[in-house]
Amino acid sequence: MTFKTSFARQLADGAGIVDLMSDLGEALNVNPDLLFLGGGNPARIDAVEAILASHLHAIAEDADAIHQMLGVYQSPLGSERLRAALAAYFQSLGWPVTEANIALTNGSQSAFFMLFNLFADGVDQRQILLPWVPEYLGYQDQVLHPGVFRTMRPVIRCEGDNRFEYGCDFDALELSGVTAMCVSSPANPSGKVLSTEEYQRLGALADAAGIPLILDAAYGAPFPGIVFSGTRPAWQTNRIFVLSLSKLGLPGARTGVVVADEAVIEALGSVNTVMSLASGNLGPTLLLSLLQAGTLDILCEQHVLPFYASRRRFALDCLARHLEGIPHRVHRADGAFFLWLWLPELSVPSRVLYERLKARNVLVMDGAHFFFDQAESWSHAQQCLRLTYCAEPQVFERAIEILAQELHAISD
Amino acid sequence: MTFKTSFARQLADGAGIVDLMSDLGEALNVNPDLLFLGGGNPARIDAVEAILASHLHAIAEDADAIHQMLGVYQSPLGSERLRAALAAYFQSLGWPVTEANIALTNGSQSAFFMLFNLFADGVDQRQILLPWVPEYLGYQDQVLHPGVFRTMRPVIRCEGDNRFEYGCDFDALELSGVTAMCVSSPANPSGKVLSTEEYQRLGALADAAGIPLILDAAYGAPFPGIVFSGTRPAWQTNRIFVLSLSKLGLPGARTGVVVADEAVIEALGSVNTVMSLASGNLGPTLLLSLLQAGTLDILCEQHVLPFYASRRRFALDCLARHLEGIPHRVHRADGAFFLWLWLPELSVPSRVLYERLKARNVLVMDGAHFFFDQAESWSHAQQCLRLTYCAEPQVFERAIEILAQELHAISD
Repeated sequence: MTFKTSFARQLADGAGIVDLMSDLGEALNVNPDLLFLGGGNPARIDAVEAILASHLHAIAEDADAIHQMLGVYQSPLGSERLRAALAAYFQSLGWPVTEANIALTNGSQSAFFMLFNLFADGVDQRQILLPWVPEYLGYQDQVLHPGVFRTMRPVIRCEGDNRFEYGCDFDALELSGVTAMCVSSPANPSGKVLSTEEYQRLGALADAAGIPLILDAAYGAPFPGIVFSGTRPAWQTNRIFVLSLSKLGLPGARTGVVVADEAVIEALGSVNTVMSLASGNLGPTLLLSLLQAGTLDILCEQHVLPFYASRRRFALDCLARHLEGIPHRVHRADGAFFLWLWLPELSVPSRVLYERLKARNVLVMDGAHFFFDQAESWSHAQQCLRLTYCAEPQVFERAIEILAQELHAISD
Repeated sequence: MTFKTSFARQLADGAGIVDLMSDLGEALNVNPDLLFLGGGNPARIDAVEAILASHLHAIAEDADAIHQMLGVYQSPLGSERLRAALAAYFQSLGWPVTEANIALTNGSQSAFFMLFNLFADGVDQRQILLPWVPEYLGYQDQVLHPGVFRTMRPVIRCEGDNRFEYGCDFDALELSGVTAMCVSSPANPSGKVLSTEEYQRLGALADAAGIPLILDAAYGAPFPGIVFSGTRPAWQTNRIFVLSLSKLGLPGARTGVVVADEAVIEALGSVNTVMSLASGNLGPTLLLSLLQAGTLDILCEQHVLPFYASRRRFALDCLARHLEGIPHRVHRADGAFFLWLWLPELSVPSRVLYERLKARNVLVMDGAHFFFDQAESWSHAQQCLRLTYCAEPQVFERAIEILAQELHAISD
């Protein structure tokens, strides 16, 4: 069967995110023996799951709670009780919000599908600006029209022998025809965290242009809060923050939280209802339960963050040990749970390295997927890998050993 | 904020389904005192919830089961184990399927969003034919382009003094420019169930035209199986069956099941991943648990069906008692959980009746929403109400008393 609609061409053709999720599905559900440094599944943290289990248990014991979770459609914008509890929580951080600024969605991926297509269609240059790539590959095929994303190359600041950081090329930044800017922070894939200055400067430019700044905080503050350094930006009007429960340990719940101006929230409520009728209740029910028990921050600060901080230290150390002598730089890993590895002297495209590793049972992410339309024209875009450090340390180490072997083999 | 994209115009403007879900949200979550015969929320059936609770309980006691439900993204097409179990279940009904014919989605609403937009965009007349209206209002705003739906008026067969049934006007049916046909059975709103002959005849026409016949079985067989009479069609190639867990008692889980040819399933997997990353795990986990325990059919046949059959008898009887002397006809209520009331001598548009009832704390569905582009041009489309009979009998009866009072007041 051939589908002739432009929707099918845009969304049903082979997409990077589909390969990624297929790899992930295979690794997690079919072939658990893979050395998997690929997809974005969060790590299994026993203490976190024990807390979530206790909340789920309490729900399962209470007939009315069961009914609310299983037997009732949420309102278009999501559970009123949760939105009120979230408003109070965000207010406690000093954010100027009410529940009218909050919408729940079936995961943040689906929030981005709605947001991008509400704001941009490429017509009359209505474009989304990504102020730098690499940026989250999952955005790429979400737009219903070609030419919606406008991307910029970052400036690259090298630090010492083996570190680097991307920065915004503010001199080149130009917003005519742009209807929204979007940045992930902590960034997927690079782990970059927006500095206070960058956040304020991008925000001021957005305000001057009368367009929103969308911040993808799937890994960010206040939850799951996988931020090792850098700013924890506060929401304000004309910003759209997209949060998620996935990296807290709940990817199976598919729950996104959008904080935005009321007009955006209202539009999201309509679109979400038309497309999905309602969002699922599992994540919202657990989140409300965590907020009511005062457990959300404890989960983030005492379990999630220390876990990834420890894995991160190990991963950085592991890379330093095994890649000694191989020219490489790692992006400042200030948040999320990836190391973004740049191999400036790699003599094959990163895709070839990805395939050689896959043949040896090691799954990583080929960095080229994250460069959007810059992937072909910029040599840097063929020199990077994303390595998730959620895996058990011995799995990570074994994979990096094999990576080192392949890099030696390629350069021989 | 004004959104200028056509996506925003199509999906974010006031839509019937948004009003419906707002009413539903208000009734279920804010104002439980309403006499609510409106939305599609299934009834609370204690025996069903007790069974679901016991399955949820078992999951909450098992750390690995918890992890599988909360901590892991599903594969693009949904849990492999569930798809295999569903294939075996459908095979036991004689359907020629494997797991490659099965996809899971975040609810059937979201499955229809993907299906409609894969098949039709109105360009070169690529249209979806609804062989008769009234048809499910939730389809209406799901398409990304105007002019995607082509609708037909049904033939109306009256039976006795107070019954009627819609039928397909096969003589007028014409498929040029049509890329898919879609029918809900049991129909929302009318409760019509396709006869074996209608299913075969529509299927033969679809096959001859080389287009799929989409069957929306959200209320149908094999699950939830709210079918009081009529055929339980078997899937075959070139049909697309869309099932759902919602009316089984799990609207909060947002789980749809699509059975279709492999090419359709593959396309859905891609689109679902791009739009939503993965589907939620709550519904799939419970469904797998029900299938493994052999409890699914018991749930449908011993609890869900008898419950609605009893409510249906009461509702029909209640209408007959209170509307005596008022000219009215009720559609054959062969499935789902609605009575579709036709008031052929109603002297005001059904919208006015809807508003008068709402002012008296009675929520019903204005039938006009279900007539798509026929709503304005056909007097019949202004003469119908959809009455959900999920409510407690005394609530239903009190609402019908008020309906009768309003009808008398209008005709005075």
